[in-house]
Parts: sequence; structure tokens; C-alpha cells
Amino acid sequence: MIAVFGHLNPDTDAIASALVYARLLTRQGHPAQAYRLGELNFETAYVLKELGLTAPELLPQLAAGSEVALVDHNESAQSAPHLAEYEVTRVVDHHKLGDLTTAAPAYLRFEPVGCTSTLLLKLHREAGLDIEPQDARLMLSAILSDTLHFRSPTTTPDDRQAVEFLSPIAGVDDVAGFALAMFAAKSDLGDTPAETLLKMDYKVFPFGDPEQTWGIGVIETTNPAYVFGRQRELLAAMDQIKAQDGLSGVLLSVVDILNETNRTLVLSATEGKVLREAFGVVAQDGVADLGARISRKKQIVPTLEEYFAPQA
Amino acid sequence: MIAVFGHLNPDTDAIASALVYARLLTRQGHPAQAYRLGELNFETAYVLKELGLTAPELLPQLAAGSEVALVDHNESAQSAPHLAEYEVTRVVDHHKLGDLTTAAPAYLRFEPVGCTSTLLLKLHREAGLDIEPQDARLMLSAILSDTLHFRSPTTTPDDRQAVEFLSPIAGVDDVAGFALAMFAAKSDLGDTPAETLLKMDYKVFPFGDPEQTWGIGVIETTNPAYVFGRQRELLAAMDQIKAQDGLSGVLLSVVDILNETNRTLVLSATEGKVLREAFGVVAQDGVADLGARISRKKQIVPTLEEYFAPQA
Repeated sequence: MIAVFGHLNPDTDAIASALVYARLLTRQGHPAQAYRLGELNFETAYVLKELGLTAPELLPQLAAGSEVALVDHNESAQSAPHLAEYEVTRVVDHHKLGDLTTAAPAYLRFEPVGCTSTLLLKLHREAGLDIEPQDARLMLSAILSDTLHFRSPTTTPDDRQAVEFLSPIAGVDDVAGFALAMFAAKSDLGDTPAETLLKMDYKVFPFGDPEQTWGIGVIETTNPAYVFGRQRELLAAMDQIKAQDGLSGVLLSVVDILNETNRTLVLSATEGKVLREAFGVVAQDGVADLGARISRKKQIVPTLEEYFAPQA
Repeated sequence: MIAVFGHLNPDTDAIASALVYARLLTRQGHPAQAYRLGELNFETAYVLKELGLTAPELLPQLAAGSEVALVDHNESAQSAPHLAEYEVTRVVDHHKLGDLTTAAPAYLRFEPVGCTSTLLLKLHREAGLDIEPQDARLMLSAILSDTLHFRSPTTTPDDRQAVEFLSPIAGVDDVAGFALAMFAAKSDLGDTPAETLLKMDYKVFPFGDPEQTWGIGVIETTNPAYVFGRQRELLAAMDQIKAQDGLSGVLLSVVDILNETNRTLVLSATEGKVLREAFGVVAQDGVADLGARISRKKQIVPTLEEYFAPQA
């Protein structure tokens, strides 16, 4: 049995892609089971509830040498704690290649598209397999989520074509309305503890040499005012995680999905200096206006990578 | 212009795949040029000559940040000396994933098949592109070379299907005869210097922690008696490269293609001990009979990797 899972702090793509890829592998004669590496966010919970699906189980510690398939991530810092003991035989991902190695030749499918599910659709079509409506809806949800319904600069023509192909199979006529309902569910944060808000979509990145480790959270919302209303609590949560995990810096970007803007909370002078020098942005009242840089993967991480890169 | 190249000490797959992938990328609107990282072996020279093709040029030092595509390898030890300065945007390979990282999301296509060209055929078919006869012949040659015409345990059903698909397009009716002619060309070593014989199909692998570095050469031949006739010269060449490159050990496997056996030259007590402990084989007269272990990738390297692995 192959264990299939997406990254820590799973988003809709991490969960949907694990479910869809596990089913694809099983249909192809490789029995597989989807798992998650953390709690669902509100958007993903909404997507699964609308489909009448329960969440995949939390990944337990597997026996050493167990066969695993990674979706939507490849770096060890974003993966299962015991990944080094498992045998990675398959990866489907749309992120840069990090510290992954494999013990033997494996199946790797990486393309610079907006969403892992866009690649999973290709895998189905290349294998000549029909798409089941439930899988279509999971992939459709993941693509709309990852691309913020094509607002994100990570969007590619392949993602648009995938949505066009999937929406009739998924039985979704009004794609824009479907996406808005997902984004509203994601933004309905209620009395979620600040630590949970921070970690909803949070990844740790190593930069530079000597290595610095940065935690970068993103809250994509249709209601940024709600998030800024909890600014003080969020800063306290950022401070705590920074100390606890021994991080060099912590950023939390509040992305206004509908207006396509990013305002990032600035924890201390360290983060302020990096934002000023790397992005040319000066914080005001503890908030740096990063303008239209709404993609962590495409507009935040590469700039930081370059900023921290050792000079040749 | 994307520079496309295979590994150091190129074999037929490294050269053919670079040529075919460069043409595929160009046809898909990404102008590309094939290069080689070393001298052609006799088999590859024969394949190109029969097709009336000249060899790709040696890869020059490219400008920092140049876009490159790797075929048939991914580890830096087997790649261009300045690889770290280039931007790897595409890799097509059938080896285990080593120390490769990418600065941004890239196209990676890895599958555990017998030959990179088998994957290139898939890329053509997935893109709905017809195969030109010259490309068909290059891919056919590469697959027959890498799988020793299906004798190697690395052979998969995909490789067999690819040969079946390609041979009519390549105009090759007698696949077995075509393969034998290639192997005969490869075995016609004449007065090739011993250093050249050793490096014809030679790769360097890091093992264990603390890291040991081993050089492992393979001579695939239909005429092993010729190679063993030059045993003394070859051992001298192995001794020299070991000292010069500061290696922990050097192995040279003489693979009898037709009888599917591997007899490996043992340079010193160091190599003898490792062969004895890792493979349970005792050398006689400086030669260790590794039996049917004819695939370095599948039957030599994984065993050494396990042997040198730090105990958990």
C-alpha cells in the first residue's frame, strides 16, 4: 500500500491531490491510500463537506522503508517528520526542487504550472482514463484555490484549460460562483485561535549559506479587515513560533483575494530590514504593503532566495 | 537558446537523447541546441555515422544564468563543471534523484524505465507530435544500447513497447541484427589507450557519511577476451585515476553483453574487501566474478549504497 500525502499545513491542493492521486494509482494497479499531514483549513473542509467526503486520516508513523508518494511538495521541511526513513517512489509537484533525493529511480512529474491537480489531470489523460465526477470536483477546487481563480501570477494556460475540461465533468456551471463560495468559506475564520490562523498556510524555507530559516505564512481572505482586527494576537503568535522553532524570521502575508493585494505583518526590525532591502518596501504601523505580490512561491520566496544568496 | 546535454563520458543514450530532446523543444517553440560533455564512444560514433550525423559540439562554458536541460543524468558529479551557475529548467532522466535542486519550478520527468529515450518517445506522443525517422533511429539505438537489447534487468515493458513502436519508423526490420552491429562497433576497441577504455562509461558516486567517493567504470563488450588481454594496462589506469582524483576506490566491470556476465577488475585490497563484504564475491587473479550483475545502476550502485549507508 502506497501512502500518498501533501505538505504540512495542508491546503486544498495538498488534500485534493492526495485523494485523487491515491485513486489514480489504485486504478492503475498500485494500491494507495491518501493521508494528510495536519488539520484541514476552512476552505478544504468546505470542499470535502460539499462532496460528502470525510478528510483523509492523519499520516501515522509508517514502518521504515514504506513506500510513499508525495504530492504538492518535495522539501523535507514541508513533509512528514520521518520522511528520510521512507522510500519515495513517486512525486507529483509544481514547486522548485529542494533537498529531495531518492534511493532508486522513481517517478517524478514536476511542471511549473499553478496547481498539482493540473498535472494529475494530465496523468489521467495520458493514461487514457476517464475522470470520475468526484475527482473532477476535487481537482477543479484545487486549481481554483491554488490560482485564486486565475488571479495568481502562478496561473498558466494549462490550469485554465484544466478548469475548462473539468468543470462540466464536475457538474459546475458557474465556476466563478463556485470559487467565490470556496473563498468565502476560507475567510469565515470566526474565533479560530491566532496560532491556527498563522499556521493555516505556513511553510518553512531555508535560505542562504550559512543557512537562515524563515517561516512564511499566508492568509488568503476575502475579508482582510477581520485579520487586521487580530493583528496584535497574530504578532504574538509569530513571536512565539519564532522563538520556539529557532527561526531567523517570520512573515505573515495577508492576501486580499478579490483586490489582489498583499499586506504583510512585520514582527521585528529583522523582518523589517529584509522586507526593505529585498522588496524596497518600508513598513508602516507594523504592516508592509507588498502590493500585487500575492504569490509566495513566485513573488516572495524567489526574491528572498536571491537576497540571501551567497555572493559569488 | 536552451543548452541540452547528457552526462560526462557520454553513451549512446546521453548523445541521442540530447539530440532528440533539443529537436523536440525546438519544435515546441523553445529553441534548443544539443551538446556533449565528452568524446563519443565507438558505439555512438557508429550510430551517428550510419545516420550521416555529426556529433553535437562539446559544451562550452556558458554565461552564468544560462538555461539548460539535462538528459540521462541529474547528479552534479556527472554533469557540466559549471552546472551550479546555470539555470536548470528541464530534466528528463531514468536515474535516482541525486543532489539536483532548481531555483524555480521546473519541468522534471523521471521514470524508472531502461532508457531516457523511452521517456522522450512518451513526450512526443503526449504532445501529439509525429516522430521523424532520424529521431526514431536515435531513440531506438539508445534504448537498445541502454538495455543491451533487453538483456539488462533495467529493461521495462515500456522500453520493449518503445522499440516496437520506433523500429518501423526508423526503417529497422531486423532489430536484433541492428543491435548486434552496434555492440560489435562498441567492442571494436583496437588500440584505444587504457585511460580511454576506463573512462568510456565511467561515473563517480558519493557513498555514505562521512562521504566516500568511488569511480565505477563499465566496459560492455561482445569481446571480453580483448579487454582482459589489457588487464595490466587497465589496472595502471585505474591506479592513476584513483590517486589523481582522490577517490576512495575504483571499480571496472567488464560486461559480456552476449553471455550477460560481469567480471570486475580488482585494483587493491580496499576494493577487494568491499566486493567481498558487499557482494560476497572473492576475487581470483585480480578479477571478481559478479555473475549476472550486469547493470551498474540496478545491481552495483544500490548494493554499494546500502553497504556504505550509516547505521541508523
